[in-house]
Amino acid sequence: MASDQPPIGTGATGAREERDALGAVEVPAEHYWGAQTQRSLLHFDIGEDRMPAELCRAYGLVKLAAALVNGEAGRLAPEPAAAIAAAAKEVADGDLDAEFPLRLWQSGSGTQTNMNVNEVIANRASQLLGGGLGTGRLVHPNDHVNLGQSTNDGFPTAMHLAVLLAVRDRTLPRVEALAAAIRAKAEAWVDVVKIGRTHLQDATPLTVGQEWSGWAAQLEAAAGRLREALAPVTELAAGGTAVGTGINAPDGFGEALADRLADLTGLPLTTAPNKFAALGSLDALVAASAGLRGVAVALMKAANDMRWLASGPRAGLHELRLPENEPGSSIMPGKVNPTQQEAAVMVCLQVIGEDAIVAAAGSQGTFELNTMRPLVIGNVLHSARLLGDAAESLRVHSVEGTELDRERIAAHVDRSLMLVTALSPHVGYDRAAAIAHRADHEGTTLREAALALGVDPADFDRVVDPATMVGDPRRDLGLPG
Amino acid sequence: MASDQPPIGTGATGAREERDALGAVEVPAEHYWGAQTQRSLLHFDIGEDRMPAELCRAYGLVKLAAALVNGEAGRLAPEPAAAIAAAAKEVADGDLDAEFPLRLWQSGSGTQTNMNVNEVIANRASQLLGGGLGTGRLVHPNDHVNLGQSTNDGFPTAMHLAVLLAVRDRTLPRVEALAAAIRAKAEAWVDVVKIGRTHLQDATPLTVGQEWSGWAAQLEAAAGRLREALAPVTELAAGGTAVGTGINAPDGFGEALADRLADLTGLPLTTAPNKFAALGSLDALVAASAGLRGVAVALMKAANDMRWLASGPRAGLHELRLPENEPGSSIMPGKVNPTQQEAAVMVCLQVIGEDAIVAAAGSQGTFELNTMRPLVIGNVLHSARLLGDAAESLRVHSVEGTELDRERIAAHVDRSLMLVTALSPHVGYDRAAAIAHRADHEGTTLREAALALGVDPADFDRVVDPATMVGDPRRDLGLPG
Amino acid sequence: MASDQPPIGTGATGAREERDALGAVEVPAEHYWGAQTQRSLLHFDIGEDRMPAELCRAYGLVKLAAALVNGEAGRLAPEPAAAIAAAAKEVADGDLDAEFPLRLWQSGSGTQTNMNVNEVIANRASQLLGGGLGTGRLVHPNDHVNLGQSTNDGFPTAMHLAVLLAVRDRTLPRVEALAAAIRAKAEAWVDVVKIGRTHLQDATPLTVGQEWSGWAAQLEAAAGRLREALAPVTELAAGGTAVGTGINAPDGFGEALADRLADLTGLPLTTAPNKFAALGSLDALVAASAGLRGVAVALMKAANDMRWLASGPRAGLHELRLPENEPGSSIMPGKVNPTQQEAAVMVCLQVIGEDAIVAAAGSQGTFELNTMRPLVIGNVLHSARLLGDAAESLRVHSVEGTELDRERIAAHVDRSLMLVTALSPHVGYDRAAAIAHRADHEGTTLREAALALGVDPADFDRVVDPATMVGDPRRDLGLPG
Amino acid sequence: MASDQPPIGTGATGAREERDALGAVEVPAEHYWGAQTQRSLLHFDIGEDRMPAELCRAYGLVKLAAALVNGEAGRLAPEPAAAIAAAAKEVADGDLDAEFPLRLWQSGSGTQTNMNVNEVIANRASQLLGGGLGTGRLVHPNDHVNLGQSTNDGFPTAMHLAVLLAVRDRTLPRVEALAAAIRAKAEAWVDVVKIGRTHLQDATPLTVGQEWSGWAAQLEAAAGRLREALAPVTELAAGGTAVGTGINAPDGFGEALADRLADLTGLPLTTAPNKFAALGSLDALVAASAGLRGVAVALMKAANDMRWLASGPRAGLHELRLPENEPGSSIMPGKVNPTQQEAAVMVCLQVIGEDAIVAAAGSQGTFELNTMRPLVIGNVLHSARLLGDAAESLRVHSVEGTELDRERIAAHVDRSLMLVTALSPHVGYDRAAAIAHRADHEGTTLREAALALGVDPADFDRVVDPATMVGDPRRDLGLPG
Repeated sequence: MASDQPPIGTGATGAREERDALGAVEVPAEHYWGAQTQRSLLHFDIGEDRMPAELCRAYGLVKLAAALVNGEAGRLAPEPAAAIAAAAKEVADGDLDAEFPLRLWQSGSGTQTNMNVNEVIANRASQLLGGGLGTGRLVHPNDHVNLGQSTNDGFPTAMHLAVLLAVRDRTLPRVEALAAAIRAKAEAWVDVVKIGRTHLQDATPLTVGQEWSGWAAQLEAAAGRLREALAPVTELAAGGTAVGTGINAPDGFGEALADRLADLTGLPLTTAPNKFAALGSLDALVAASAGLRGVAVALMKAANDMRWLASGPRAGLHELRLPENEPGSSIMPGKVNPTQQEAAVMVCLQVIGEDAIVAAAGSQGTFELNTMRPLVIGNVLHSARLLGDAAESLRVHSVEGTELDRERIAAHVDRSLMLVTALSPHVGYDRAAAIAHRADHEGTTLREAALALGVDPADFDRVVDPATMVGDPRRDLGLPG
Repeated sequence: MASDQPPIGTGATGAREERDALGAVEVPAEHYWGAQTQRSLLHFDIGEDRMPAELCRAYGLVKLAAALVNGEAGRLAPEPAAAIAAAAKEVADGDLDAEFPLRLWQSGSGTQTNMNVNEVIANRASQLLGGGLGTGRLVHPNDHVNLGQSTNDGFPTAMHLAVLLAVRDRTLPRVEALAAAIRAKAEAWVDVVKIGRTHLQDATPLTVGQEWSGWAAQLEAAAGRLREALAPVTELAAGGTAVGTGINAPDGFGEALADRLADLTGLPLTTAPNKFAALGSLDALVAASAGLRGVAVALMKAANDMRWLASGPRAGLHELRLPENEPGSSIMPGKVNPTQQEAAVMVCLQVIGEDAIVAAAGSQGTFELNTMRPLVIGNVLHSARLLGDAAESLRVHSVEGTELDRERIAAHVDRSLMLVTALSPHVGYDRAAAIAHRADHEGTTLREAALALGVDPADFDRVVDPATMVGDPRRDLGLPG
Repeated sequence: MASDQPPIGTGATGAREERDALGAVEVPAEHYWGAQTQRSLLHFDIGEDRMPAELCRAYGLVKLAAALVNGEAGRLAPEPAAAIAAAAKEVADGDLDAEFPLRLWQSGSGTQTNMNVNEVIANRASQLLGGGLGTGRLVHPNDHVNLGQSTNDGFPTAMHLAVLLAVRDRTLPRVEALAAAIRAKAEAWVDVVKIGRTHLQDATPLTVGQEWSGWAAQLEAAAGRLREALAPVTELAAGGTAVGTGINAPDGFGEALADRLADLTGLPLTTAPNKFAALGSLDALVAASAGLRGVAVALMKAANDMRWLASGPRAGLHELRLPENEPGSSIMPGKVNPTQQEAAVMVCLQVIGEDAIVAAAGSQGTFELNTMRPLVIGNVLHSARLLGDAAESLRVHSVEGTELDRERIAAHVDRSLMLVTALSPHVGYDRAAAIAHRADHEGTTLREAALALGVDPADFDRVVDPATMVGDPRRDLGLPG
Repeated sequence: MASDQPPIGTGATGAREERDALGAVEVPAEHYWGAQTQRSLLHFDIGEDRMPAELCRAYGLVKLAAALVNGEAGRLAPEPAAAIAAAAKEVADGDLDAEFPLRLWQSGSGTQTNMNVNEVIANRASQLLGGGLGTGRLVHPNDHVNLGQSTNDGFPTAMHLAVLLAVRDRTLPRVEALAAAIRAKAEAWVDVVKIGRTHLQDATPLTVGQEWSGWAAQLEAAAGRLREALAPVTELAAGGTAVGTGINAPDGFGEALADRLADLTGLPLTTAPNKFAALGSLDALVAASAGLRGVAVALMKAANDMRWLASGPRAGLHELRLPENEPGSSIMPGKVNPTQQEAAVMVCLQVIGEDAIVAAAGSQGTFELNTMRPLVIGNVLHSARLLGDAAESLRVHSVEGTELDRERIAAHVDRSLMLVTALSPHVGYDRAAAIAHRADHEGTTLREAALALGVDPADFDRVVDPATMVGDPRRDLGLPG
């Protein structure tokens, strides 16, 4: 197990006999997995969704930490402890991804994936120790690799790690980068006055920067709430073993594992204060999923606004010009469509729906275990990935290249009737309403209607000034005046 | 029980003792209900949602039919049978609505509402027979009013009846009236050419009538599917009694009840072919709820399109002018908002969400009974009501008074670049695309760009004619050419 | 407006003319509401759901705070300011609840309810000032009561207040009381050893106290997360007026209103840092709704476990004896059903579904306003109420009266095969599995099977001791050893 | 294009230049796809979900039918028509699956996948004609392969075909096979009397066959409703082209395509009666998705019942013995878990959730197009696949091998108190209730309690006979008596 460590690969072909408590099974000799993995492949041929690689790698971290803790405490001899740790690190690093073929749709506790991990590590560790694979191997999947653990505490621990890493390393950075790009646009366009719209109807003006700052603020706040929603996920079930009592695990095992995993990942991990809740529920992930949903809800609003503001070019609002990334239509030449926004909206609807699945799964625990775990990890990791990637795609391929149609923006302000709102404190709501109605029905400008109804021209020009109606956009954006 | 039948009312005040299997309870003397109703009031003080009146009235029909069938078969003596039938009819007619105070949130089978109905009918029937109320009454809630029945078959029977009646008598007529109003507009505007929009971007033209015919067709098809979705609801659980075996009900009781209820309601009712499924599931109502959802999905699309097409008036699309029903804003004088459409959209989201609740409830049956019944009936009747009412409100207060802004519609067509699509078969997709791009980037008309790129003016004028690009709108709408 | 303040009531019958920007309307003279309320009654006859009283009362607080701030700043004269404040306080106190008849399904901004509040306060304040109602009243709904406000910032402010108060004053105390009652049971039964169950299958033992502590921990954590989810709700939109720019509101108005409302309610309120996000989104309430959902998910698990553990009495698990609150069946005499748990489960499914509606609504904002506001406030307040009430009902009518069936509990432990897990570290997983299988297939006790397979009886008796297999329940519950 | 047709494969490596309306792009020379596919790969790097192969193959059918129709009408010359048809058939047969690398998350209309199909077929057809790939190829993706089509009518046509084929060929057969297997068990166990359970509490008896017949009836009815829900899916959008008017398609093109596709697939296809609805909505698939959901709701109930009835073996109900497919626990030796049922339940929750996503997507159409199409096809095909596969797995690996624990079943009946229900018609509900309560509280048998309360022993033995309390199970199952 030194520098002459054998490379990954069994060097065999054909079949190898593996055994478990139910007897012997033939497995493909080129793979490290064992009897229980092979049984699961036979019994769960459901769809094409695999247990996510992120989960399997995180499980590698759990096994690595357990081997280190067990080795240091003398519960495993130094040699096998080191071999298990080395093999587990390969799992954690993704070097053995091909050894985890199981479907997501399996035992509701994830037992088969835990055994897949145990079997692969046992065989690889045995190989590292100079031993064989399968019957006669030097490391036992249950007695050694799984020592002090049950699927019931180990799988939720791996779930939590996988989600924390995915959200920390991919979702949040990408969402935050999108928010930053939107904020940069807001600052660039802080002074461009445009017409506001409420109920889709013309309203009082604001600046483009103010409008974009709203999207940025939504995304920033949603990202912040997602970050906070990870707090309960840092509490790990490990140490609870089969039903939460910690049977067959030594005192302090959960604490030691959490500490070791914190070292390995840089995450602020602790042992869950109540292991019965940690095994019986999925509440922490339900809450984290709500955090993902919050980002999706905010992103969907921004993406929808963008595509509406870019609508046209001739028969829509067209205040924005989105980058033209591809021909938009197979039949209409020259068409440009807001495809990045459409992809983002579809992703948001998917994430919102997957969150509902997670909540439903969270409600279906029974007694000492919630056996909807693969369902939950599949959806949460899928949502986390999609959300981050959609944010990145939208940022790079649309937001950063978006430009204003300033002529159109100005024309919309000039024509608007809702500038009348500024008159209201001076002439009263009812008279102001009469002015707006007159202009609308007669198709005139607001100024014409106001003067016709007796407003002094000088008063009108002083009061009805879009540039002053937008308040203080620089202050709103925290920019120096 | 002849013409001198005592009017509704106990004529008493203070408290009356009532008894059930658990002992004595004091109930308000002015009410007909008994011990179990009173217990439920004490034990289920949850929110303000009451068991819907439609359900209680439908339960009156079930008790009426049972009394008639039991009386004819001699299982009840003629006098009490007639009294029970008379009291049950009062329940069915809504005359005793005030006697059903129970919360929706109660026993998951609806037992307490069944006993509420049994108790009210027992006391009222006793009164009709010249007897007293409570202890010593001449009619027993269980032995007589509930004869041959269990909550487990009676409550789902009442649920089915209530839903069939609500959808037949209120939801469908109102949705169909809305569809008809939309179709009438489609026919009125069959020839008005407008610009099409896909991806929110300008596309090839169609007529206003074609666009409205799409909404009408969606609603008509959705209403048709809702009607079909009622078919399984016409199968009644009655006759299955406690667990589906029909214990304590005579042979043929389910068939007789279904026949009698069909006579009473004009509905094509039959007895459910498998009573174990009828009691253990809510599948028929889950399917009916999907029918309601289908209408909501279609309605939401139409309502959203309408409010977008009415957006403006100056800085939006504004192809439609909606009726101005109320001042739109408390601060912006003269504002007109698409409030009917907003209400409709909100109702649609509520219905879509309630349908998801119904499906979740449908999945939670256990063994011989699904005990999510009040949850399901509350949501289905609520959705059915809202959907019908929103359709009616939208029709009367918006659709029928909607007008076109023909100038705006014409201007949108004139400016469009996507008319280039008609050139594509003549000059090829790639050259047509170059024309559209040139016009877009140079801000010219399509004609100018086409000519600049070598298209013959006469060819252009012949081919690029919006009126011929819309195909045959009259044929599409089934109108005589 | 002194001590001789006129009592509530117009003292009139018949009809009164009221006017708004669209003209004159007749309203019932006995009511305070005005033209726009009356128009809304005519135009929005959709279902029976009213705008919740909690929202209208919270809106009274907003109007009260605005009158005080406007009065102090001299924007309103002292007399009308005081009259408006006095009338607004009556609204806030619920004394004028009967004056808010509008449906939930109305303008998506809540404009009509804002005007309902404005009109009622204007007429009542005019009355307090000695003036008349309707045309000629001394206080104007828009110019005075709505001064410095728009529906677009006022309605979300009232929404936030209503939710904060409902959750703080009703939902959280009731959920926390339930959690405390469950924890008290956990402590009382901390040492009662029972069989664990995972995958519904017999597992290693734990104590009743440990199991109940899991439910308590879930509810406590969920309540804590709900409390944290209120933080963004304390940020108020007031001050943003029509589109977020604060048009027609003086500088600092939002801050002043938040401070005043904080004084009035004891809530830690601040003005929202970005008003465009505050108006354009519903994100804070989407997050709060996820907090309610989190409680529902936890409660549903506990309620389901309870009813399963009480199943039987003869052919189920029956480790718990629930209080017998009512006869369980209309046909099966003597039946006792877990009705409180069923009601709780139904409420949880409703809350989970309503949360999904809220998220969908949150995604549907457009530009400067999300017009799904009545939909959201209706569902959030409904969920908050139901969840609190269901928790209270479950606590009082079931949890506190629940007892153990200790004989059954002991019998389950004695028969279990999964005690073999304790042997595993001594004889290895594979041999332990063989022992369990033998006992299962031969129908013997675990001890018999172990001895038959060569385990030493003394070893068996030392190792396989349920009381030591449960770990340290007192430590798990934080109790002194 | 004769027998010497070149095999699939470009025979090139490195890069090839391809052009579209936006200019030149380098694509990997070993692939057939063109410029727009390559652009999409760059612009939509979102997650790992690909456009489903089933959709791409169905699109091949659409292109095949179009080539045949266009060729026969002389709109394409015979040679290119035949070459396009041949290439399209290869797509339909799955031989070119590797040429469709695009993500699901792309343009909301599926334009990029349409162009992917057009490009692959154009290049392959050019190759078949002896021409080159890319610039200078003999077949144009838009002008030839896409002739008479738009993505907006072609993609929904391919969606409908893909769903019809998936449900007809995989989902329905597998669900129906499961239902048949359950029905076979019902028939085998038609006479085995067991205790019923309602509210999880002991109820009156039924037979195992009756109980299983309920699950079978639910699944059969749900499968029937799914089949009916396919009816609107047989209406195809083809012929509507860009916005529903059929621009650039000849008269009768939609009818001809539908006829040809019907020939190719054996499906009862027709052209959609209203193309504006067909393009603007996804209603037919929303309804079909509800059909899938209906199966999931029914399956979830059956799967849950099974795992509960198998609970134990010692401390649960354990009326069923499920096949032992794998070791159940990594820490508890000898544990057997209901893993097939758990997988099925998880799949059902996934399907129910994906259906909600489909409905949400269906509600988000705008004007002439619903641009949530990839989202919908991804979820519907995923659900259809999972549901069929889970049904198959459950049938083969659990249902068919399930056995009864007849001793336990008999013991449950013997001990039950709810047999008292049979006494009720003889002694009245109230006295029967008293008997049940006495037996419960004193822990005696029902017979002992009945006799103690004065029931004649002979009467008791005659009336309280479980075998007669189950009614007529053979008739219920349609079996000869």
